Amino acid sequence: MTVRIGIIGVGIMGADHARTIVEHVPGASLGAIYDADRKRAAEIAEETGATDVAGTPEALIADPKIDAVLIASPDQTHATLTLACIAARKPVLCEKPLAPTSQESLQVLAAESTLGKRLVHIGYMRRFDPAYTSMKAKWKSGVLGKPLMFHCVHRNVSAPPWFDSKMAIANSAVHEFDIARWMLDCEIASAHVFQPEAATPGVIVKPVFLVLRSGSGQLVTIEIFNNATYGYDVRGELVCEKGTVSLLSPVHSETSVALAQATAYPEDWRPRFADAYRLQNQAWVKAIAGGQNIDGAASAWDGYAAGAVAEAGLASLAQGRSVDVSLAMKPALYR
Amino acid sequence: MTVRIGIIGVGIMGADHARTIVEHVPGASLGAIYDADRKRAAEIAEETGATDVAGTPEALIADPKIDAVLIASPDQTHATLTLACIAARKPVLCEKPLAPTSQESLQVLAAESTLGKRLVHIGYMRRFDPAYTSMKAKWKSGVLGKPLMFHCVHRNVSAPPWFDSKMAIANSAVHEFDIARWMLDCEIASAHVFQPEAATPGVIVKPVFLVLRSGSGQLVTIEIFNNATYGYDVRGELVCEKGTVSLLSPVHSETSVALAQATAYPEDWRPRFADAYRLQNQAWVKAIAGGQNIDGAASAWDGYAAGAVAEAGLASLAQGRSVDVSLAMKPALYR
Amino acid sequence: MTVRIGIIGVGIMGADHARTIVEHVPGASLGAIYDADRKRAAEIAEETGATDVAGTPEALIADPKIDAVLIASPDQTHATLTLACIAARKPVLCEKPLAPTSQESLQVLAAESTLGKRLVHIGYMRRFDPAYTSMKAKWKSGVLGKPLMFHCVHRNVSAPPWFDSKMAIANSAVHEFDIARWMLDCEIASAHVFQPEAATPGVIVKPVFLVLRSGSGQLVTIEIFNNATYGYDVRGELVCEKGTVSLLSPVHSETSVALAQATAYPEDWRPRFADAYRLQNQAWVKAIAGGQNIDGAASAWDGYAAGAVAEAGLASLAQGRSVDVSLAMKPALYR
Amino acid sequence: MTVRIGIIGVGIMGADHARTIVEHVPGASLGAIYDADRKRAAEIAEETGATDVAGTPEALIADPKIDAVLIASPDQTHATLTLACIAARKPVLCEKPLAPTSQESLQVLAAESTLGKRLVHIGYMRRFDPAYTSMKAKWKSGVLGKPLMFHCVHRNVSAPPWFDSKMAIANSAVHEFDIARWMLDCEIASAHVFQPEAATPGVIVKPVFLVLRSGSGQLVTIEIFNNATYGYDVRGELVCEKGTVSLLSPVHSETSVALAQATAYPEDWRPRFADAYRLQNQAWVKAIAGGQNIDGAASAWDGYAAGAVAEAGLASLAQGRSVDVSLAMKPALYR
Repeated sequence: MTVRIGIIGVGIMGADHARTIVEHVPGASLGAIYDADRKRAAEIAEETGATDVAGTPEALIADPKIDAVLIASPDQTHATLTLACIAARKPVLCEKPLAPTSQESLQVLAAESTLGKRLVHIGYMRRFDPAYTSMKAKWKSGVLGKPLMFHCVHRNVSAPPWFDSKMAIANSAVHEFDIARWMLDCEIASAHVFQPEAATPGVIVKPVFLVLRSGSGQLVTIEIFNNATYGYDVRGELVCEKGTVSLLSPVHSETSVALAQATAYPEDWRPRFADAYRLQNQAWVKAIAGGQNIDGAASAWDGYAAGAVAEAGLASLAQGRSVDVSLAMKPALYR
Repeated sequence: MTVRIGIIGVGIMGADHARTIVEHVPGASLGAIYDADRKRAAEIAEETGATDVAGTPEALIADPKIDAVLIASPDQTHATLTLACIAARKPVLCEKPLAPTSQESLQVLAAESTLGKRLVHIGYMRRFDPAYTSMKAKWKSGVLGKPLMFHCVHRNVSAPPWFDSKMAIANSAVHEFDIARWMLDCEIASAHVFQPEAATPGVIVKPVFLVLRSGSGQLVTIEIFNNATYGYDVRGELVCEKGTVSLLSPVHSETSVALAQATAYPEDWRPRFADAYRLQNQAWVKAIAGGQNIDGAASAWDGYAAGAVAEAGLASLAQGRSVDVSLAMKPALYR
Repeated sequence: MTVRIGIIGVGIMGADHARTIVEHVPGASLGAIYDADRKRAAEIAEETGATDVAGTPEALIADPKIDAVLIASPDQTHATLTLACIAARKPVLCEKPLAPTSQESLQVLAAESTLGKRLVHIGYMRRFDPAYTSMKAKWKSGVLGKPLMFHCVHRNVSAPPWFDSKMAIANSAVHEFDIARWMLDCEIASAHVFQPEAATPGVIVKPVFLVLRSGSGQLVTIEIFNNATYGYDVRGELVCEKGTVSLLSPVHSETSVALAQATAYPEDWRPRFADAYRLQNQAWVKAIAGGQNIDGAASAWDGYAAGAVAEAGLASLAQGRSVDVSLAMKPALYR
Repeated sequence: MTVRIGIIGVGIMGADHARTIVEHVPGASLGAIYDADRKRAAEIAEETGATDVAGTPEALIADPKIDAVLIASPDQTHATLTLACIAARKPVLCEKPLAPTSQESLQVLAAESTLGKRLVHIGYMRRFDPAYTSMKAKWKSGVLGKPLMFHCVHRNVSAPPWFDSKMAIANSAVHEFDIARWMLDCEIASAHVFQPEAATPGVIVKPVFLVLRSGSGQLVTIEIFNNATYGYDVRGELVCEKGTVSLLSPVHSETSVALAQATAYPEDWRPRFADAYRLQNQAWVKAIAGGQNIDGAASAWDGYAAGAVAEAGLASLAQGRSVDVSLAMKPALYR
């Protein structure tokens, strides 16, 4: 059975998903594409060989020739479109975040719970990244003892002027919130945000540094620096009782020239996480074809929980003190 | 269009090809499998969902429901089966080596030339490995100047007792012969084989060390150590006029425990070259679907030429001196 | 002129100082040794060729054949002995900490100020470590822009049962407090201590994690883990506006064996900081011989200031909130 | 006892020796300096506080206030001056090479043998380098099995136009010849020289690649590239039956800027081998003070043997084939 996928939103992220599916995912076909920019939709459809260009997201979701939906439209549309997919009983892979607010995420949880079946996956693709899965396998092997601290770093070359500290928490750090929950197998209990104030006047830098406390008592430290200039760089070290394990980024060659031995940083996330997106999308399609949920992927609950940590982080940013994460009772469907 | 592939030979290598196609290659289906061991063929067919189990390789090649053939049967069958594919006008990806002798390889070149069309690719998958392609891109960028020396190392955990120094040259080093030709864009002119004789009595080690001279005047040094014990490890450094570039192997995490900071070696080639096989097979299928040859893949000529270097290497091993590579005139089809 | 040095206290640290002076410091001689354990003093004197074994620390300080004093006795004796050296007008290199309390450190500042001459250096030897000096030179070169964050990690193999979280701050983290002040050329303004609570019951781990704010607005994060088991490991990354620079530890070879590529961690600080102690002691002796203060070494003020940060850290540990560092006015002598 | 050292020749190398002694070697004093360039001699004497400037090398050697002599004058003077030191019964540390020809080296062996006492050390300082000593300790520990191959690389930023392939063998590769003999605890039996001929016309590059066979049957491969442009870089990998060990160069920090993560290469040998020179000279002075030979340092025999390998290498360069190393019988004094 070929899974016919419709993609809503083909900006940079959605277009990459389309290409990943066409080039790397057996058992899938691109059934339809929608984008608010019709011209862009038509271009990506032609490039990827997608069958149709849909007139509205709703039409795409309703299309009987579409088996599953991938949502990569603007953040504020995620929850509404996900609810529409649930209503249409179609599996959906929604880019993070699930919703701008916990309230909206809770509506998705409620809808899935009413349906009694999980259809929603959130695109926290790091769960499929070989570096993170290798790290988790290492500590699960027992050789390092229990995790005590998880140090995370997320740096981008540059962010647009409107990408402020709130977005650093709500849009960048959510990846860390999700992966920390997944790595440590527990929820996050509280968040405390710090910021340096030392930059050259006029230089746009708004790094944030978060200290989270997990429900199991671990510390999770997170540096988010969206104007780090030097490269796209995601780092992580899991400090355990008897040893530590660190992420390594994919790098294929090393050059010695002009008095330096160097490896290259990518300019954005795509080279760093190409494998993660590929493996995530393969797993998603395989699960749909087999009538299963993806093992290990982020559920709607995970999307909600990461958002709840972000809300605590935003409150801490505003108030300058530690803020507890407020979580609803976990519905039975997600246990 | 879906390319329906038949696989001849599903030992470790052929079975891996079958899995790679099913899991990672859109646009392909497994149409039939043949193996001398019928039980094995049936098991792999069931595992991978291949449509048929063929009774003979000839039947598989002749099957009108098969569009292209992947040969992973024992080495001595390669040339005959490849010739059969040419006769049937079907694209074929033949595992290396193309043939045990240059004479047989030349028959394949003759058959393709008579047909006037290239149908044969040889599975020298390193040409698709991100480390080697990154290395080649780096020197082609011009920043390092021209290549002068290419140092290659190929080490295995262990080899069976019957895997002697001749096989180290004819079966392991051929990968290096091919990749050196591809990296330097020229043929190999001569080979000189050295061997250490220092091992503990009874310890099975037969490393060989080759010094090749390229047609453009570069030196290529190759260490082949098939009983290196410590891990599967392929290294390479291209030394150019103004700098060098070295291969890096894929490694996803680093562990600190028990007074050591360490990364893991794989036990065999599969983790090291999984990306290369995946990208090669994707490119092959895409090329067939598009009616094209794979850009950059090894042709029958490349298979022949690597074999010719191996023959020079074997002669040098026997004679203890440098031996020139003897190459036939290159047919027009391969220019 | 040969500088005749007396060493007070020849436990592990003092004995290492004695050996460093004898083996690596031209222009110095070991004039006398004192230790509360007379037998130990005699053994180290014999091993190192020290001229005398002093009966009391006071006698050593008063000895006219002693030009300069190195204090490596128990922490609580440091201030008193340093004051005695000032009274005797002898240059003194005092192991950290200068004093258990700021009050006592202030007495040393007052005594030096009254004398009107700086005689005291504190053994914060990291200021001479090639990794830290290389880091500082890198950001001072301007290529990275201004520092924003300094991430520090200090891990030991194991600590004795009585080495609690307070000592982690007052005895281990003070090295980080000093080096952060030196690296950033400013004082520390506040400290906030966090601790994970996730260890296996019965396992002795009391890591602390500090977030400091510098007077210039930088964040300094410090992990102290004195029971890290896996090795002695000091790490640091200085995150600047346009790039980062990280410390590298001295390591001389890399081994590939048993499926791992590994480098070794030392079991304690000695291999890691041997160069720093050597260069510090050479600089100290050279400065004394030249009648100068050591350029870049920690002064009594630096000893006081690091202690003041420790006091803020201890208060934060007790109170669970950020605590401001309380600093006296800097005497003119140290500006 | 202070060892009063005289230095003959204070070009780059000799001046560095003078500074190393003054700054890092307790128990030594600089008694006299000689250089053919009187002005240079006076400058270095003033800089380092040397007591005298000698009028001739002979006067320096004869000076009763000089206990030991360090020879860093031009290569062709080494043997004559060393013989003069033996005649004067003064310990001598002679920079490599001992002599331009084996014949002259044999005269030194004869003179020492006649005296019946070893006074001569050759400045093959790599034997004191922490990377090489760490490598040797590793294989001697037994965990890797016996050595089979030793791969060596020596690259300089640039060499003057008159530094031809002969000098690459006689002046650069001799360091590798000595360290290979030391590492493998045996003599070198034969040498085979190869050269790439692929450089851009007009670009001065004359790399040489040597394959040596040791008396114990190991292969030693050596690349010498004196115009490598990118940095001063000495590499080595010892391949043993069960694993390998590689040299690491001293590097103190790592920088991430402008899409690259990089460490720096030094421009010449001084940062790379500063520790080796320091440790060698300390060991030399300590041995003299104690009336002993330096444990592990190169003897006159070692100087002769490295030169004999160079002669075989030069013959191979001229003849294009493997050449056996011709060694005299080892005098009893050196066994």
